Amino acid sequence: MSKFDTYFLMNAEEVVEYVKEKLDIFDQAADLQCKEIGDGNLNYVFRVWDNNSDKSVIVKQAGATARISDDFKLSTERIKIESDVLQLEGVLAPGLVPIVYKYDDTMSCCSMEDLSDHVILRQALIEHQRFPLFADHISTFMVNTLLLTTDVVLEHKKKKSLVKNYINPELCEITEDLVFTEPFNNYNNRNDVFPLNLEWVTKELYEDKELHVEAAKLKFEFMTNAQALIHGDLHTGSVFIKSDSTKVIDPEFAFYGPIGYDVGNVIANLIFAWANADATIEDEEERLSYTAWLEKTIAEVVDMFNEKFLQAWKEHATEILAKEEGFDKWYLSTVMRDTAAVAGLELTRRTVGLAHVKDITAIADEQKRLRAERICISAAKNYIKQRETYQTGADFLNTLKEAAKAY
Amino acid sequence: MSKFDTYFLMNAEEVVEYVKEKLDIFDQAADLQCKEIGDGNLNYVFRVWDNNSDKSVIVKQAGATARISDDFKLSTERIKIESDVLQLEGVLAPGLVPIVYKYDDTMSCCSMEDLSDHVILRQALIEHQRFPLFADHISTFMVNTLLLTTDVVLEHKKKKSLVKNYINPELCEITEDLVFTEPFNNYNNRNDVFPLNLEWVTKELYEDKELHVEAAKLKFEFMTNAQALIHGDLHTGSVFIKSDSTKVIDPEFAFYGPIGYDVGNVIANLIFAWANADATIEDEEERLSYTAWLEKTIAEVVDMFNEKFLQAWKEHATEILAKEEGFDKWYLSTVMRDTAAVAGLELTRRTVGLAHVKDITAIADEQKRLRAERICISAAKNYIKQRETYQTGADFLNTLKEAAKAY
Repeated sequence: MSKFDTYFLMNAEEVVEYVKEKLDIFDQAADLQCKEIGDGNLNYVFRVWDNNSDKSVIVKQAGATARISDDFKLSTERIKIESDVLQLEGVLAPGLVPIVYKYDDTMSCCSMEDLSDHVILRQALIEHQRFPLFADHISTFMVNTLLLTTDVVLEHKKKKSLVKNYINPELCEITEDLVFTEPFNNYNNRNDVFPLNLEWVTKELYEDKELHVEAAKLKFEFMTNAQALIHGDLHTGSVFIKSDSTKVIDPEFAFYGPIGYDVGNVIANLIFAWANADATIEDEEERLSYTAWLEKTIAEVVDMFNEKFLQAWKEHATEILAKEEGFDKWYLSTVMRDTAAVAGLELTRRTVGLAHVKDITAIADEQKRLRAERICISAAKNYIKQRETYQTGADFLNTLKEAAKAY
Repeated sequence: MSKFDTYFLMNAEEVVEYVKEKLDIFDQAADLQCKEIGDGNLNYVFRVWDNNSDKSVIVKQAGATARISDDFKLSTERIKIESDVLQLEGVLAPGLVPIVYKYDDTMSCCSMEDLSDHVILRQALIEHQRFPLFADHISTFMVNTLLLTTDVVLEHKKKKSLVKNYINPELCEITEDLVFTEPFNNYNNRNDVFPLNLEWVTKELYEDKELHVEAAKLKFEFMTNAQALIHGDLHTGSVFIKSDSTKVIDPEFAFYGPIGYDVGNVIANLIFAWANADATIEDEEERLSYTAWLEKTIAEVVDMFNEKFLQAWKEHATEILAKEEGFDKWYLSTVMRDTAAVAGLELTRRTVGLAHVKDITAIADEQKRLRAERICISAAKNYIKQRETYQTGADFLNTLKEAAKAY
């Protein structure tokens, strides 16, 4: 018998007890301290550390505020998906996600590696820090977690059991609404458009019927293409980083969807960092140097992804028809097409939709923000409408640079 | 307590007892008789009828020969899928599937409408019978069961729960091997090629690398595109028919896959009937008249499907982006593309693969069979390679006629 045999919401003291009883991390002599460090929405995040050693752990528990409502079910389901996916990703891409020490279904909590020595990539980019290994790390993460969960590599019955296991209706619905629908029609009246751009956005997004049909095609692709176990929310706020280490967190949106959804999100959020740097770094030399580093990183993410993808295909493909000459390159070209489209969707929805990015909202100068948003959206429209034409990093960069020149 | 509380394999006498106890079909005074009418593979099919009335019923039970092996699990899973799908299809397309009276999970058996007054369509077509209502009926069946289970119409969370429910790994594997892979590379050495065509088939199928890449693309489409709850095996042997009634049976291959997989199978199997008639009807006038009826039927299936699909879209679409102008026609064009490709795959695999069709094998004259097979395969290659160009019934027919002219 243990007090942790029935769910209850732990406070910091109880988390210390929990860690002592359930985890084999700290010594008997440990002097444990605990602090709630999350922003306390549906989940609570505790950091537990030992004053007598350098050991520490993160305990993330699904909240109980709405315990008997659907929200609780949603919350516990999310933490289960997060734990399961982190463990699978840890096998496929070792070192690139936090280690899960224990998932506890009763307590709806996940104990995992403490990444307090890392920072959130989005914030670091807004502070104009550089991470020369990021493109290498994130491209490895994506190739390994994505290609290795497709029918190219996995035995098809095994893959279908994963598809079934990771059907994720509630979180997918959020994406379907916020990414694929509302940015183009403000259907739920939740868009939040920068006032100086409202007229321009109305014309460029709400009144562009051709764009709406493309959004419809992409929404159906997202809802039907069970290609790989994608992260589903791979923006720069889902990445913990330090100079020599990159860790992808928060995969609660994971499900079997299009590979390009993850790659496109990375590209779009690097472009937001670019737009922030372009608008906020006063010193010209410094600005050009930093945006050049971001451009190099964007191109490297695409080009390294392409290169590693084909290499991993050679090494790991098991499906006999996947070995037909030329099929790998055709398949990759469809991933790049989807990548371009999703980069466009993410650039659009994070600029005009419900959930903004700090990269843009932190631009204090109104004229510079107006310009940054127009660069992002006009590049986005090209990525969406001309998605068949993107293959290399240079292709993606050219569109960004042309958009920057136009505004 | 009932003897039917635990699974056992019923004999005819026990089926009569079962029907009396479990079904509310026959009167107390009924004089019931029972006969096993199936071909006794994994499942047993019993017909029970009343000598004192015109009432009858079919009882289909999963076999127990391999009770503790995987085969039994497969067999019981199949009959559950069949029962579930027949019931859903009965709601979506009333009158076009047999009525399910009862599915009994304990006994792994399904009691359903007796269709003894119908005949199997494949056999009837080989006997050169005509069914003027078939195109109308089958196009309604397909539009209603397919479009109405897509994200166009279904609430997306509900659709995802159906996707999860109908993940069907074992049966899909059969299709992936027999339809998409082996016909092109004889990978498992199970192909069965008519000796007079072996050299020609080697060149036209085994050595056409471009065709193999297209097969690879289509195989991945089949494995990943969770578009609609498809029947999955909709050939003319899965259709019971009489002059005024069409009933689609045997949906045990059902899963969420591409709509075109069902439509393409119908078209291909009508083409097999055409090839049979073309090769076996001696009298020219009769031959031309019957092949003309088949041609009309093929074109009608395509054109009625197109017309009803767009009409049903107008009436039933709930997804807001599905209502964007032009999206319905674009979506339908992708269905027709998939239809053409699958028609080509089915024509190929049923000619050279493990499972033949009687339409072709019943052609006694060797030269005529050689020609019939070449017509089917050369049309097939066009359907696959040029799949983007097929939209109307006339498009499909033109290819058939050109192939017929060439051999």
